[in-house]
Amino acid sequence: MSVNYSQAPNQLVSAANGIDYAYRETGEGAVPLVLLQHFRGNLDNWDPALVDALASTRRVVAFDNAGVGGSTGTTPDTVEQMAHDAVAFLTAMDLGQVDLLGFSIGSFVAQEIALARPAIIRRLILASPAPQGAAGMHGWAPDVIGAVGTPETSPGEYLGVFFTHSASSRQAGQEALQRMYARTEDRDQATNWATREAQYDAVCRWGIPNHSLLQRLGAIEMPVFVANGDSDPMILPHYSHLLAGLIPQARVKVYPDSAHGFLFQLHAGFAADVEAFLADTE
Amino acid sequence: MSVNYSQAPNQLVSAANGIDYAYRETGEGAVPLVLLQHFRGNLDNWDPALVDALASTRRVVAFDNAGVGGSTGTTPDTVEQMAHDAVAFLTAMDLGQVDLLGFSIGSFVAQEIALARPAIIRRLILASPAPQGAAGMHGWAPDVIGAVGTPETSPGEYLGVFFTHSASSRQAGQEALQRMYARTEDRDQATNWATREAQYDAVCRWGIPNHSLLQRLGAIEMPVFVANGDSDPMILPHYSHLLAGLIPQARVKVYPDSAHGFLFQLHAGFAADVEAFLADTE
Repeated sequence: MSVNYSQAPNQLVSAANGIDYAYRETGEGAVPLVLLQHFRGNLDNWDPALVDALASTRRVVAFDNAGVGGSTGTTPDTVEQMAHDAVAFLTAMDLGQVDLLGFSIGSFVAQEIALARPAIIRRLILASPAPQGAAGMHGWAPDVIGAVGTPETSPGEYLGVFFTHSASSRQAGQEALQRMYARTEDRDQATNWATREAQYDAVCRWGIPNHSLLQRLGAIEMPVFVANGDSDPMILPHYSHLLAGLIPQARVKVYPDSAHGFLFQLHAGFAADVEAFLADTE
Repeated sequence: MSVNYSQAPNQLVSAANGIDYAYRETGEGAVPLVLLQHFRGNLDNWDPALVDALASTRRVVAFDNAGVGGSTGTTPDTVEQMAHDAVAFLTAMDLGQVDLLGFSIGSFVAQEIALARPAIIRRLILASPAPQGAAGMHGWAPDVIGAVGTPETSPGEYLGVFFTHSASSRQAGQEALQRMYARTEDRDQATNWATREAQYDAVCRWGIPNHSLLQRLGAIEMPVFVANGDSDPMILPHYSHLLAGLIPQARVKVYPDSAHGFLFQLHAGFAADVEAFLADTE
């Protein structure tokens, strides 16, 4: 029996690219599930309730990509380089074929890995995702980047993007924050301003309108599960439909009364859907 | 109180293009809902239960496009010309702005009208639809065209495409067929082989892979409701997601245990969803 995510120690692995990657892991299983984090997030920004639910049936590995949080190196300003850096981590960990869950900008990185190194991904989960080049997403809406793009983001600003205005969603958001901040020792290093700047450059580049790039997704042949909250102000759910329309074998689910952080708000239900998808032997 | 659809008389209207269009109408309301029929379908192939449910709150007009069933003229072999012919009918009827429900190939025509003459459409419903140029839909699957593309299609072949293999869906299919065949007098003229050939040419043309054409849908600015059965073998539901991904304001619903004829199988629920969409004053 492994420790819960909130007790999992910070670990470091040295990769061939010279980066020391910070990571935590919990759970046991043959094919690891690797998590790719959201904009400005580090290891402490995964809701332990979600990670533990996922880890009840499998090994789960969270890590900081190059330059992020407790990892060394510099955060690159392209999703392509982030994918390259993530593959270097997976290689250093000798994980073999993995399942990949990419959340927000992490979903961009996951798509890029799926296109550049498809052989290492068994099944792919894209949470609050968007495809490169889709119209209407060149940078986030002013109120969104105004909330989560400032030097110091408040819990209220975080809640306004990751949760809806309903009482139940806000309550779920408060509880998720409490779980994320319950760990007081051995916390990860905070992400810095250079990471914020580079990641948002990458987000803006990803959103440069280019209809022809949408066609790339037709090359993704592994099983894909696309998921989003129905009220996500950061990455609108219609991009989830677009992904599911461009990846013929993708399944898609849009969760009610939830926003960018639907997977934290609905951690039990989402983990169950992920488990059903990953365990599907079709 | 108007007559039910099954008692509505066949009528003719002469349009400026020289075509006499066959149509039926029922219900009352300010903005008419006009129906665009599926491959090889005529006025008798609308399930009266669906039309009557729609007509409980509004005027509903079904018609045969040029060359189809009881209408004069020749069935064209392009969706573009079908849209042109449909606009000629709408003009001849002096309907003003309408709501449009396009089913299957009718959804192709509806999209084309929305792009060519957006001013005449208030709200748009696309049932079992697909966008022009999407990958993987150059003609229907061999078992589908083998079932519904033969000179004489049997009820069993129809059921195999329009309904699923579940007992409840098959039962619903039998009941829909009974409703459609209950009318014995004043039936519409059967569609002929020339219509079948021309319509399938148009279907194949619509499915010529051309990724750049998907971008056209971004020009559709009216409210759109996209709907399909989750097990449609003729036009796969992932094309509904693609439509909803390319038309940002579109809402989408995929109905459980239903196929190409989901709107007949689930006539009450679908009509309620259509009513909610059409009555939405957002």
